[in-house]
Amino acid sequence: MTIDHTHDPALRSWVEGADGHPDFPIQNLPLCIFSSEGLERRAGVAIGDFLLDLPAIAEALGEAWVEELASPVLNGFLALGRDARVALRHRLSELLGDVSHRDVIEAALIGQSEATMHLPTLVGDYTDFYVGIHHATNVGRQFRPDNPLLPNYKYVPIGYHGRASSVRVSGEPVIRPSGQRKPPEAETPVFGPSRRLDYELELGVWIGPGNALGQPIPIDEAASHVAGYCLLNDWSARDLQAWEYQPLGPFLAKNFLTSVSPFVVTPEAMAPFMTAPFARPDGDPAPLDYLAGGSDAPGLGLTVEAYLSTATMREAGTKPHRLSRGVAAEAMYWTVEQIVTHHSANGCNLQPGDLIGTGTLSTASADGLGSLLEISQGGKAPLTLPSGEQRAFLEDGDELILRGRAEAPGYVSIGLGECRGVVVG
Amino acid sequence: MTIDHTHDPALRSWVEGADGHPDFPIQNLPLCIFSSEGLERRAGVAIGDFLLDLPAIAEALGEAWVEELASPVLNGFLALGRDARVALRHRLSELLGDVSHRDVIEAALIGQSEATMHLPTLVGDYTDFYVGIHHATNVGRQFRPDNPLLPNYKYVPIGYHGRASSVRVSGEPVIRPSGQRKPPEAETPVFGPSRRLDYELELGVWIGPGNALGQPIPIDEAASHVAGYCLLNDWSARDLQAWEYQPLGPFLAKNFLTSVSPFVVTPEAMAPFMTAPFARPDGDPAPLDYLAGGSDAPGLGLTVEAYLSTATMREAGTKPHRLSRGVAAEAMYWTVEQIVTHHSANGCNLQPGDLIGTGTLSTASADGLGSLLEISQGGKAPLTLPSGEQRAFLEDGDELILRGRAEAPGYVSIGLGECRGVVVG
Repeated sequence: MTIDHTHDPALRSWVEGADGHPDFPIQNLPLCIFSSEGLERRAGVAIGDFLLDLPAIAEALGEAWVEELASPVLNGFLALGRDARVALRHRLSELLGDVSHRDVIEAALIGQSEATMHLPTLVGDYTDFYVGIHHATNVGRQFRPDNPLLPNYKYVPIGYHGRASSVRVSGEPVIRPSGQRKPPEAETPVFGPSRRLDYELELGVWIGPGNALGQPIPIDEAASHVAGYCLLNDWSARDLQAWEYQPLGPFLAKNFLTSVSPFVVTPEAMAPFMTAPFARPDGDPAPLDYLAGGSDAPGLGLTVEAYLSTATMREAGTKPHRLSRGVAAEAMYWTVEQIVTHHSANGCNLQPGDLIGTGTLSTASADGLGSLLEISQGGKAPLTLPSGEQRAFLEDGDELILRGRAEAPGYVSIGLGECRGVVVG
Repeated sequence: MTIDHTHDPALRSWVEGADGHPDFPIQNLPLCIFSSEGLERRAGVAIGDFLLDLPAIAEALGEAWVEELASPVLNGFLALGRDARVALRHRLSELLGDVSHRDVIEAALIGQSEATMHLPTLVGDYTDFYVGIHHATNVGRQFRPDNPLLPNYKYVPIGYHGRASSVRVSGEPVIRPSGQRKPPEAETPVFGPSRRLDYELELGVWIGPGNALGQPIPIDEAASHVAGYCLLNDWSARDLQAWEYQPLGPFLAKNFLTSVSPFVVTPEAMAPFMTAPFARPDGDPAPLDYLAGGSDAPGLGLTVEAYLSTATMREAGTKPHRLSRGVAAEAMYWTVEQIVTHHSANGCNLQPGDLIGTGTLSTASADGLGSLLEISQGGKAPLTLPSGEQRAFLEDGDELILRGRAEAPGYVSIGLGECRGVVVG
């Protein structure tokens, strides 16, 4: 991963408010799809509080890959891979940095407050992994106190297929799902609204070129198939999940909605923030050969956070309460590269624009738990909020907000934006 | 479900070989997508050994929905629902039945042997269910001899999300997947080609209009969202499955390939063959309210079969050996309508062109077992073929063929076509 002049901390943008922006300084330049009054869905780049309309500056970008940016989804552009992303990044860094371009470019800026964000791709397949070892341990402990991790966990990057049709961008209302649940004391299940609605703090990975059916991606090539990162909330109905999940895994407990932040933060933007992977404790098995290798610094140096804001808190003007905070690389037993290689190891084809979730990113610390299931110990220890309200699980009106941020000494920090959702009954 | 004049057994077609055709007499008229020399992907209808090129006869069809048939996928047409399908069926029945249309229509017939078949839709999501109660019992017994069915089975139509990107049409080679497996005697898993490659005999359901996110489909409306049926082979690597599937279900054991027959056999074609659903034994719980109701005859009166042909058998000219045969309605504890309603009960949105598998359709009979896992009792009792070869699981060169057929007294029987795949190492 090359760190080049586009990361120079001295680099400034002529776009008002971009310098010092917590998420979108000129060193980030994440891709997105947006629409606004008079503008149909189109590719954009976030800079400060603005979006740059890419089709509107096609002439200034002026390379062959510009054609792919004329689409209302990014699948085609992400399929082009690293070279096109790097070329676009370099050109945008110049256009937004050098004030001589201001006259041409400024007319193509739209305020984010005036735009509607859309999913960046047509998601062909959405897969969710389970690489958060502390999460897997915390959840496993509720079922098997003495032996929380299953025997396969340290060999297999566990994953399962989620629902592509219900992936939505930040802001989508979270309609409380109904389903079957079996109260512990009941003889038979009942059907009705979930009483144990939860969030899961995850990162999402957008797939770039991908592979043909039957042609696995070797670990040394895995990084070249990652097109970007986002925040991902794997909303979960724990009561439905407990009753339905055996033997084939979660289904209706999860597929009613998955929310993602709208910005595709590229591997190029993340280059200064990549770090060592999870430190496997002594005695843990080494990854099998097909999962060994890859980049020198495959760990995601991203600090991810979850905040809760109840309707009462919002009415009172109380700021959202932070539920958790932790660094992704410290939570992820398997790297994104290992996820990609494992997913394709049997020949399964990953396609441009596919979405992969990491699984819940809980750290070893009590303030780094990425779900209410863990925070409230399965509901037994409700959380008390600054408003005095208690929460074991999400109530109607609750807003859940995910944030993510990358920092490294000597570099301008960047953010992933936000992933929000309000629960409606 | 209306049985009308398009099912009249006296109805004949002027297309040579259509009358008496085992799969595609004029009473069937299944939809498909095909291409051939000089013809790009397009919508077609099977009649006898021919395909009728629908865009080529747009003028003769001449209704508003004809536009949707100009697409290289059927998603748009299936989204229109029952009325459009019925109108097309009636018009095709007339055009292919009444010899006065022969001059206009005949030029649009292409021999199936000259055509390449494609997936009928762009599959947004593929979900696989587990409604074959005898299959679930047989498989469960290998793990839990005294208590083969889990407690949720008779309440929850169990399902999970499969991989949409690797759904392929009949004829796709089955590349033996590699993956992790843990031999019983080994301390650690090994990585390599699966040694327990299996098939699963299923039916596929193509979704029509579907529902918006957050708006469940009531059971009384479920039938209106079914656009058609096909054969489906859920290829499975049992050794990968056993090691990976806990706690989130099957993943790499399944997502390397799912094969379907190319023809969408409509609910209208199936009308005379719908039958009573599975007879729940005395003492079984009634379906919960949201799953109770629907059509009078929601059972699929389809006889489904699996055949195996080894390379040696093909060289010797030996005909394929039948592995199993059974009626779908006798295998399916839950109906297709219950599957559709359950899938959307939490608000999950089904989209036009989505694919749903029933799960393996094994009957209570020893000659009705829909997988080698069941036939060979987990590999312990290999099958002896007419060639003298033995099979516990599939070997390289083996061809697996699924067939399906609907029959009812007083009606011309119809077929689903075939779903084939040859295993390559």
